[in-house]
Amino acid sequence: MIITISREFGSGGRELGKRLSDKLQIPYYDKEIITLASRNLGFEENYVSRMSEKGIKAAYALTIGHRLMPQGIDHTVFQTIQVNAEQHNIIRDLARQGNCIIIGRCADIILAEYAPFSIFVYADMASKIIRCMDRMQEGEHLSRKETAKQIREIDRNRRSLRKTYSDDHWGAKENFSLCINTSGIEIKAIVPSVAEYAKAWFLSRKTEENLK
Amino acid sequence: MIITISREFGSGGRELGKRLSDKLQIPYYDKEIITLASRNLGFEENYVSRMSEKGIKAAYALTIGHRLMPQGIDHTVFQTIQVNAEQHNIIRDLARQGNCIIIGRCADIILAEYAPFSIFVYADMASKIIRCMDRMQEGEHLSRKETAKQIREIDRNRRSLRKTYSDDHWGAKENFSLCINTSGIEIKAIVPSVAEYAKAWFLSRKTEENLK
Repeated sequence: MIITISREFGSGGRELGKRLSDKLQIPYYDKEIITLASRNLGFEENYVSRMSEKGIKAAYALTIGHRLMPQGIDHTVFQTIQVNAEQHNIIRDLARQGNCIIIGRCADIILAEYAPFSIFVYADMASKIIRCMDRMQEGEHLSRKETAKQIREIDRNRRSLRKTYSDDHWGAKENFSLCINTSGIEIKAIVPSVAEYAKAWFLSRKTEENLK
Repeated sequence: MIITISREFGSGGRELGKRLSDKLQIPYYDKEIITLASRNLGFEENYVSRMSEKGIKAAYALTIGHRLMPQGIDHTVFQTIQVNAEQHNIIRDLARQGNCIIIGRCADIILAEYAPFSIFVYADMASKIIRCMDRMQEGEHLSRKETAKQIREIDRNRRSLRKTYSDDHWGAKENFSLCINTSGIEIKAIVPSVAEYAKAWFLSRKTEENLK
C-alpha cells in the first residue's frame, strides 16, 4: 500500500497525507525526506529544501547570464543533482520498507513500478489563499495578493520539478488515481472516505490483476 | 444533494451513477432524460438521442457544403436547439424536485447554481476497451481497434457538446469536485467510499458556508 500525494500549494494535500497516515496506520513522509537527505549529504536542511524545490533544469537555467562565474554555478547545479538523486534513493528505500504515504517530490513517478495509489489535490485560488492565511505563523503578515503570488510561485517550481522527471503536464488527471478538489471543504471531513477508497482501490486492482 | 457525473465513454461512469443511486437512495437520470424530451417534443427517442449527442455547433457545422438544400439543414439545426433546450428544462425540473444523480448532458453547468457535487470519471484506453467489449450485446462484434475508434468518436462528440455550454476544456479537473480514474479497477468496489465522500462533501461545504 504505497500512496503518493501531489498537490497544489495551499490545497491541503499535506494535511490530507498526515490524516490518512493516522487513519490507515501507515507512516507518512514529507519533510522527513529533506531531513534524511541533508543528513546523508552533510548539507544544511534549509539548503536541501531550497535545492529540492526547483528542478535540475531550474538550476541549469541559473547559469544563463552568469558566464563570469561559471565555477560557483556549476557547483550549484551539481549539488541540485546530488540532492535530487539522494531524495530519489531515499524514496525508493522507504517504499521498499513497506506501506507508506509520500508527499510531493514526484514520488508517483519515482515509484511507478509499485503502481502506487496516486492522489492529486487541488483547489480554487480563493480556497488556497484562505488555507494559507489560516496557517500563517505568528509574525507572518502577507496580504491576500502577496499570498496568491507566493502560491503561484511555489506551484511554478513544482511544475518545473515535475519536468525533471517526466514529460507529462503537471497535475494532468490522467496520471493520477484520484483527483480531489478541496475548494470550500474541510480536509478532516473527507479523510475517512478517502482512506476507504484507497483500500478498495488496492483490493480491486489486485482482483482485476488475478483475473487476467 | 445534487450529484452530476460526466465521463469518458467506457470509463464506467454510468455504472457508478446507477450504483451510487442505489447506495444513496436517490433517483438517477440518464436515458430517462431522452425519453422525457422525446415525449415532450413528439420526436422519436433514437432521433433525440442522436440530436443530443452532438452540440448545437456540430449541427450548424453540417450546413457547410450543403448550400443546395438549406431548408432541410435549417430544420436539423432548429431541432437540435429544441432538443437541447428541452433537456435543459428537464434537468432543471428534476433538480427542483430534490436530490438526484444526473449522468452527462453537461448537468454540472446547467445546474451550477445548485453547486452540485460533480464527478468526472475517466480511464486509460486499455481499460475503456475492456469495459466496452465486456458489455457488448449479443451479435455485436467490434475488434479492439474498432472499439477504440468508437470511444474516441463518442468522446469527440461529448467534447463538442461541452462547448455548447461552456468555454472550459472538457474534463478539466478544475471544473469537478472529484475526478475518478477507473483504470484497472471494478466500479462496484469504489461505490461505498464515493458515496461516503459525497455525503462528507455536502456536509463540509455547508459547515464552511456557515462559518463565512
